[in-house]
Amino acid sequence: MQLLEDRIRKDGIVKEGGVLKVDSFLNHQLDIELYNEIGKEFRRLFPDKGINKILTIEASGIGIACITAQYFNCPVVFAKKAQSINIDGEVYSTTIESFTHKRSYNVIVSKRFLSNDDNILIIDDFLANGCALLGLIDIVRSSGASIAGAGIVIEKGFQKGGELVRSKGIHVESLAIIDDMSVEDGCTFRH
Amino acid sequence: MQLLEDRIRKDGIVKEGGVLKVDSFLNHQLDIELYNEIGKEFRRLFPDKGINKILTIEASGIGIACITAQYFNCPVVFAKKAQSINIDGEVYSTTIESFTHKRSYNVIVSKRFLSNDDNILIIDDFLANGCALLGLIDIVRSSGASIAGAGIVIEKGFQKGGELVRSKGIHVESLAIIDDMSVEDGCTFRH
Repeated sequence: MQLLEDRIRKDGIVKEGGVLKVDSFLNHQLDIELYNEIGKEFRRLFPDKGINKILTIEASGIGIACITAQYFNCPVVFAKKAQSINIDGEVYSTTIESFTHKRSYNVIVSKRFLSNDDNILIIDDFLANGCALLGLIDIVRSSGASIAGAGIVIEKGFQKGGELVRSKGIHVESLAIIDDMSVEDGCTFRH
Repeated sequence: MQLLEDRIRKDGIVKEGGVLKVDSFLNHQLDIELYNEIGKEFRRLFPDKGINKILTIEASGIGIACITAQYFNCPVVFAKKAQSINIDGEVYSTTIESFTHKRSYNVIVSKRFLSNDDNILIIDDFLANGCALLGLIDIVRSSGASIAGAGIVIEKGFQKGGELVRSKGIHVESLAIIDDMSVEDGCTFRH
């Protein structure tokens, strides 16, 4: 998506250790006009009329998912990061390892909001090692719902997540795939 | 807002201890059509053309803020819950006490995204004891930005937050104010 790549080149900041800061437009300050273009592009990439729900994970996926949902006329469900495993049996739960924060955490979705009648589009801002996305896939599979695909804003193509998730037969569409990045030369996009 | 009150009556669940669950449409599964009506109503209540940024707090404020921002043609900034106090001086920071989770946490906003040129509308899903809203007000004041007001979806009018924030001269608009609620009789709204 040219508009997004241009924006990453202009306002993204590459830091040492494979870190890309896009907090001025994507995940701390949010450019809602850009979000709308992202939403339209996800609709184009996932034309499946049967998609009836968008699943994302807090916090930075929520805004993108909400704006995108307007193009699908469907509700959003977001997976919540939980302090502890919920043992009341009313939630689907999975554990996600965060390399950024060097810890693992549980995420939950109430069983009331996912069922085997649902056809789910998963939306998230980043795909790197794939842990968050695999966690969401695990939750959807626990519910018996179908997975229409996963729409990602920025994929770090030099990490293994994209390949791992696609190898499981999931239809992944990333609006920008970064094959290489460095503090000196910025981002190189896959085309 | 009649549509919202009707929805709370229909799908909200009152639990013991002053707890109102609205997770089927407002803060876990998100009804984006309702969010759009909420956004339009905030625009009607805050017609100030000078509002140039919406501030909210993760996680459940983000979706409402993003949809609302479309009616203000402005970006959203969300305050992040931080594990520890950031001491690099690049963020505005405040401490918020959470009665729900019985602990306090720090929230931060990068100094790059709030300045004394900004005229901020604060958006959040709930106003109860007011701690989160007072924290956001504290952050905006640290930045020197103006506060156009605070738009709240549901205010628990039987808790002290609304009175406290209004007594500081902040223009608060809540789309539904609950004066009383019980497991037996549900919600009584202020009119």
